[in-house]
Amino acid sequence: MTETTPAPRRRGRPSRKQTAEAGPATRDRILDAAREEFSERGYDKTSIRGIAKAAGVDSALVHHYFGTKEQVFEAAIEVAFAPALNAPTAIADGPLDGVGERLTRFIFGVWENPTTRTPLLAIVRSAVNNEAAAAVFRRLVASQLLRRIAQQLDLPDAELRAELAAAQLVGAAMLRYVIKVEPLASADLEQIIRRLAPVVQGHLTNP
Amino acid sequence: MTETTPAPRRRGRPSRKQTAEAGPATRDRILDAAREEFSERGYDKTSIRGIAKAAGVDSALVHHYFGTKEQVFEAAIEVAFAPALNAPTAIADGPLDGVGERLTRFIFGVWENPTTRTPLLAIVRSAVNNEAAAAVFRRLVASQLLRRIAQQLDLPDAELRAELAAAQLVGAAMLRYVIKVEPLASADLEQIIRRLAPVVQGHLTNP
Repeated sequence: MTETTPAPRRRGRPSRKQTAEAGPATRDRILDAAREEFSERGYDKTSIRGIAKAAGVDSALVHHYFGTKEQVFEAAIEVAFAPALNAPTAIADGPLDGVGERLTRFIFGVWENPTTRTPLLAIVRSAVNNEAAAAVFRRLVASQLLRRIAQQLDLPDAELRAELAAAQLVGAAMLRYVIKVEPLASADLEQIIRRLAPVVQGHLTNP
Repeated sequence: MTETTPAPRRRGRPSRKQTAEAGPATRDRILDAAREEFSERGYDKTSIRGIAKAAGVDSALVHHYFGTKEQVFEAAIEVAFAPALNAPTAIADGPLDGVGERLTRFIFGVWENPTTRTPLLAIVRSAVNNEAAAAVFRRLVASQLLRRIAQQLDLPDAELRAELAAAQLVGAAMLRYVIKVEPLASADLEQIIRRLAPVVQGHLTNP
């Protein structure tokens, strides 16, 4: 997994040697390991110790970089979602009558891509089971992503509208990718987008 | 919790004495305990032993009545959903142009009622994290509930339509009751129904 020799395990603050070894590459390796662990085991069963082990570093180094488990979770997800969190402007830009299709394509694009599907599964699994993880979901996805879309709409109830549009996409993704209900799980993606884009559009812009 | 003295613990088949003590009331008590345990801890962390303890009976009696953990889970959920599983006919009966509102009111009715919300949370939490629980969800909710609604529609893609309609409701319930995203979590129920009923209707009956 890792080419460097893991630092000897010890408790407490990382030693000067460990901190000296640490750097952006180590930080990224910890984030990758965290994303894997959270996706695989869910929030409750993931431990700082397990993340440290998977990354080949001492637990103290994980604490040193990120703080608590909730903070590691938030950082792991934030990195995975950096493109998504910058997307709302692009989605809301352009003609308003295409915003439903742009948002729908964006969300399914994230789910269809194996690289981004993993952290998404981690968010969903964790947020459903754990209040700390749900709080991270609310901060990142709801506040940052949906609120920014709502701001571009300039309509009464814009936030509620954005959430109900998101609910259609969240529910469809849950049933297709997580629960794998048929025929939805195997349905042609374009057929799904053709049905959902006007619904999302309606939530966002219908009078 | 229970008025009867728990039978002494032993492995294997329940003794004649236990079976004699057992009866519909004991069976129901086990189901209640199972529902509580699955809701509280999720599928993975719930054990037959824990359910037995909460019900004040021997583990063997739980196995005797229900079999494996997956079967206890299915039974616990099936009882809670008995009214829901008989509802599709009532929902699909009556004028077709009201089916969207009837389905929407039915689903939110189940979520707003604390008695049925508990097993629903158990299903959602478990199905998201565990394949065996997801299979139960697919059998009960998807096959029985949605397929019966689809059968009444008599339209091409009726099953996919029913699933996308359900996706809107599942997603809205997730964001409102599980993740508790605001303003959706505190929004007036009638306002939500007013927005969602036509969307569900459209999925089910639009050409």
